[in-house]
Amino acid sequence: MSVTGPAGFVAGGVACGVKASGDPDLAVVATASGRAVSAAGVFTANKATAAPVLVSRAHLASSGGRAAAVVLSSGNANAATGAAGLADAERMCELAAGALTCAAAEVLVCSTGLIGIPLPMDRLEEGIPAAATRLGPQGGGAAAEAIRTTDTVRKEVLVGRDGFSVGGMAKGAAMLAPNMATMLAVLTTDADATPAQLHEALTAGVASSFNVLSTDGCTSTNDTVLLLASGVAGPVDPGELGSAVAEACAGLARQMAGDAEGATKVVTVRVVGAASDDDAVAAARRVADSALCKCSWYGQDPYWGRVVSEAGSSGAAFDQDRVSVSYGGITVCRDGVAAMHDVGALQQVMGERELELVVDLGVGGGEGLILTNDLTHAYVDENMGTS
Amino acid sequence: MSVTGPAGFVAGGVACGVKASGDPDLAVVATASGRAVSAAGVFTANKATAAPVLVSRAHLASSGGRAAAVVLSSGNANAATGAAGLADAERMCELAAGALTCAAAEVLVCSTGLIGIPLPMDRLEEGIPAAATRLGPQGGGAAAEAIRTTDTVRKEVLVGRDGFSVGGMAKGAAMLAPNMATMLAVLTTDADATPAQLHEALTAGVASSFNVLSTDGCTSTNDTVLLLASGVAGPVDPGELGSAVAEACAGLARQMAGDAEGATKVVTVRVVGAASDDDAVAAARRVADSALCKCSWYGQDPYWGRVVSEAGSSGAAFDQDRVSVSYGGITVCRDGVAAMHDVGALQQVMGERELELVVDLGVGGGEGLILTNDLTHAYVDENMGTS
Repeated sequence: MSVTGPAGFVAGGVACGVKASGDPDLAVVATASGRAVSAAGVFTANKATAAPVLVSRAHLASSGGRAAAVVLSSGNANAATGAAGLADAERMCELAAGALTCAAAEVLVCSTGLIGIPLPMDRLEEGIPAAATRLGPQGGGAAAEAIRTTDTVRKEVLVGRDGFSVGGMAKGAAMLAPNMATMLAVLTTDADATPAQLHEALTAGVASSFNVLSTDGCTSTNDTVLLLASGVAGPVDPGELGSAVAEACAGLARQMAGDAEGATKVVTVRVVGAASDDDAVAAARRVADSALCKCSWYGQDPYWGRVVSEAGSSGAAFDQDRVSVSYGGITVCRDGVAAMHDVGALQQVMGERELELVVDLGVGGGEGLILTNDLTHAYVDENMGTS
Repeated sequence: MSVTGPAGFVAGGVACGVKASGDPDLAVVATASGRAVSAAGVFTANKATAAPVLVSRAHLASSGGRAAAVVLSSGNANAATGAAGLADAERMCELAAGALTCAAAEVLVCSTGLIGIPLPMDRLEEGIPAAATRLGPQGGGAAAEAIRTTDTVRKEVLVGRDGFSVGGMAKGAAMLAPNMATMLAVLTTDADATPAQLHEALTAGVASSFNVLSTDGCTSTNDTVLLLASGVAGPVDPGELGSAVAEACAGLARQMAGDAEGATKVVTVRVVGAASDDDAVAAARRVADSALCKCSWYGQDPYWGRVVSEAGSSGAAFDQDRVSVSYGGITVCRDGVAAMHDVGALQQVMGERELELVVDLGVGGGEGLILTNDLTHAYVDENMGTS
């Protein structure tokens, strides 16, 4: 059901004391053979880049796109920690490599949690070797558990295809999961593929899943999505692999949207009739990131004026006499003005947990969507403090 | 103290029934002479543009930058109302022109309130002539009162200079004042100036005041700032006029920031050491519009990791080993890592109503600022519904 679903991988998760709560906070995913396999990664575009992102990117480059293991810690992001943070991330890889008898450059590293605080390396010096001795083919769930921060549930996926599968785990309750920076995902497959094939599949899969998820418009310092291929199942059709990776990414992204901090709703903002696909995504993102629209959804208020206003200020080509808006298929604005509709049916749509909003800009054939959430009292509660 | 502070202007405000509450909802500002004078306007950049904005812009163009009066209604934005809305905005000007015996093209019009609902023209057909008969040189306060929507207080300013003055009124509890779209401001001066001089002074004044105010990152369909010059005080130095207009705009913008919906704090986000002034403003805006940073301020939490993360993803040139962050002069992050500081003194700073955050990017000499607020439970309450 998780990263150990595809053949050729082992995993595990333990509590080593990074989190004061005593909850699980350290995960390892590794190849069952102990040998390095094809791997690819997609990382945050934030110029404030956490140490583990810099180290993982460098390791993938120096190893020619091969990795034997991923070590992940939660509770501390190892971001804004300077040269000491870089040394700590490298040390995490060395500790894992020592226990797993591979090269340190074949280990990738992820951390997630508070920014600006040195990692408690004494805990990790003991924890990583201990975790590495407890890996198994059933350990995917424990690993997924150990990367949670403000997530209320662990997030796992397994996509089966003819002759191979793609599995994955993720954490994240926002693009920047508020109290505890970041989203992370590790995907595995038993397909045999080159690093370049994996990179292509992963980039495309991320574009249509994590990159259209925006709970609060914030880009984390630590965002990382990794894909390792054991090759145990042999070569597969690259198109099939791409489709399975995309499906796995989409499954994890939807679980993240459903668990966004304080949210009561998962909202799909779909824009059609745009001058281009880029325009459609820009307009959808503007609506999805609007505090005003988000509050409306929380209040189950179908006030479309804010949606039109946000679309009009998104930079997308816009003709206010052609824009239409619907909630759950019920048109509330047509050609820029209020449309007659069944108020009772609309109220029912607005009350549901999953809401689809369609904005038809009426100026072309471009389409795009953003998956988002409402803005609630509970979101404010979760983000008022870091304690 | 308001638009009737400068010589040569009269104003008034009444309740005519646009607002169901019975609160004042109609204001008129006019020249005491009844004749058109030099005027200038700055309008929303939103492509979803309300009818009164389109009409005021057209009237200023056709009259060559001259106006005799401004008529303003609150409670209904006359936005997303199509051709009927345009006719209604024109009709408001005709009604004012008839009562004041000037040309309709010499009247400017503003509306503010809910989007997508036709104006109740029957109320305005009676209300505008009635209001126009009750104008006086002491009526500025009543006019300022009548343009309020979610504003908890009326907003007025008067800047005295040697031989002339600039007065003004404004409404707005956000760039898009949430429940009730828009910010509006009307400024007056008794200086004698050409429309071009007024336009230059107003554009510069708006750039350093309303345009650096961002309570929620939303741009309204109705934003309008107007400036009329009676000329009664005779010609003045253009530089002096520009400085007085800028001071008046800044005074109104600060009052709006202080009255932002649900806010407990006014926060100045100042970015220095940027590669350019544009970079500085982009980084400041990103931090100011971040839901995560806004929640931190509400919780009086000096968590600078979010600030660094937002600056890093703003698009501004950024070196994470050079960035520093201070709150109220207390440095909490230096060269990208945590800085030792007096925790008690910092907690006191975070508890104050006015907070100054300085981000030094350390890469150049560019500077800029954004004036903003925190994100609170009360903001969510105010924007959950439109009723």
